[in-house]
Amino acid sequence: MKIKNECVPCLIKRIIFEAEHSTNDEEVMKKTIQNACKALADFYDPNGVSAEIATKVHRIVYDTLGDNDPYSKLKSQSNEIAKTLIPRVEELISVCDDPLRMSILCSIVGNLLDFGIRGGSENPGNLSEVFENIISEDLGYDDTEDVKNQLLKSKKVMLFTDNCGEIVFDKILCREIKKFNPEARLTLVVKGEKILSDATMQDAEQLDFTEVVDEILTTGCFAVGVDFYKMPSKLKKALEDADLIICKGMANYESFSETDYKPIAYLLRTKCTAIANSMDLPLDICAVKLYS
Amino acid sequence: MKIKNECVPCLIKRIIFEAEHSTNDEEVMKKTIQNACKALADFYDPNGVSAEIATKVHRIVYDTLGDNDPYSKLKSQSNEIAKTLIPRVEELISVCDDPLRMSILCSIVGNLLDFGIRGGSENPGNLSEVFENIISEDLGYDDTEDVKNQLLKSKKVMLFTDNCGEIVFDKILCREIKKFNPEARLTLVVKGEKILSDATMQDAEQLDFTEVVDEILTTGCFAVGVDFYKMPSKLKKALEDADLIICKGMANYESFSETDYKPIAYLLRTKCTAIANSMDLPLDICAVKLYS
Repeated sequence: MKIKNECVPCLIKRIIFEAEHSTNDEEVMKKTIQNACKALADFYDPNGVSAEIATKVHRIVYDTLGDNDPYSKLKSQSNEIAKTLIPRVEELISVCDDPLRMSILCSIVGNLLDFGIRGGSENPGNLSEVFENIISEDLGYDDTEDVKNQLLKSKKVMLFTDNCGEIVFDKILCREIKKFNPEARLTLVVKGEKILSDATMQDAEQLDFTEVVDEILTTGCFAVGVDFYKMPSKLKKALEDADLIICKGMANYESFSETDYKPIAYLLRTKCTAIANSMDLPLDICAVKLYS
Repeated sequence: MKIKNECVPCLIKRIIFEAEHSTNDEEVMKKTIQNACKALADFYDPNGVSAEIATKVHRIVYDTLGDNDPYSKLKSQSNEIAKTLIPRVEELISVCDDPLRMSILCSIVGNLLDFGIRGGSENPGNLSEVFENIISEDLGYDDTEDVKNQLLKSKKVMLFTDNCGEIVFDKILCREIKKFNPEARLTLVVKGEKILSDATMQDAEQLDFTEVVDEILTTGCFAVGVDFYKMPSKLKKALEDADLIICKGMANYESFSETDYKPIAYLLRTKCTAIANSMDLPLDICAVKLYS
């Protein structure tokens, strides 16, 4: 997705959020805001990809803060909060007619665990408060049947994760994918470096993802979404061979929508008008949308 | 008020709003966003006054747009919409026990006619839709009795206006002030140059303000709120002599709160957390707060 005008104030808002979580030093805060504005003045271009511009700006912000993980505490809190919801997720899955669809819905509800932007969570505990309501809203856009059809004929499936917390439910989703088609080889992809509140190899290992997937790869570098220029050759090869790519969250849409990879199923909460408009979806819904 | 971190994305959001109202040219839009970000990188300083920084950034934006009045259409629409509400305002005033207080409330409800920021209006017509609700919410903070006491003993009163549309109700307020204390000399102050959706001498003349005030002055220059360094000597003298200064809207608070002028009665809707926090008021209320 190309950057939209409205992405600029949103990005600055998020940078202030992460800076306030990282430092109490007024001088560092001032420098961070100034450098972020300078970076946006330098990089803003309506023909640029939103995720790529965001990566450049966050790189400068992390360097100015002298902090390679401003979301550290929020990430572990998110994983903890999500874990407390596992029994409820398992209950929902066990009593429903379509376990795969329910695990998809739960993993999208987990996508609310995203901070510093409108439509996301104020704090990790927020998820427990809104969980039942969002589940009962159900999917606002639902290509699940098409995704299931694609999944049945897939030999190689990839799942690109997004945030911590959310990833706890992604593990259950992976298990259900493997149950649905035990023949499919499932590759999980996490971030290669710490960025925003996104899950990394450390999270995948702590959550024992090897129990439910065949392979875990990383994006290989510091990037919002995926940097296709810098990704490891192993990931490139896997993408070329994949029969179905499942992408969690908005940043993966921002990255993948600029490529020719397909089929791709986006599983996300539409938390901003830029992405809702780009995907032709309403704002603030849980959506499964397949591009094939 | 010193600028707060949260003012930065808000200012950029507003700049995008005004640019989108001013141009369809992608290149001009790009340049405007880049220049606004560059200006914020240059001018952002937590020790700087929010209104002064906003003035500098809007100056650069107006120059980049090549437009000295991006809000032109919105301003005339706002005046027209507000005029349609005059009969209702007059009815509310005529049936209530305290006409001055009701005229104050109505003039603050008019302060919702402010565009491109959260807590304001999406379009001028929005005011008609929310008018009755906001009136029934009444004043969320009410120093009216103290303001009335101060008004009774005042020989010289000044009223600093804010937005177009709102100014239609300010005229009724001015009339009620003069009824309440016919001895007080009332000076209206409008903007010296077109800035944002603020009222200028042209609006005051079109609305025949001379019917209800003794004098009309201007801030003399291009400024969000008031630029006390550049204001005309006549305005400076009037401020020094005033027994009561009435300020409409947030930008006047941002400017006056950095001066020693008093007593000042702020009549505004708290549309942002920065100002709500600074004034120790809840967000999204109509407030009359006297600093004496």
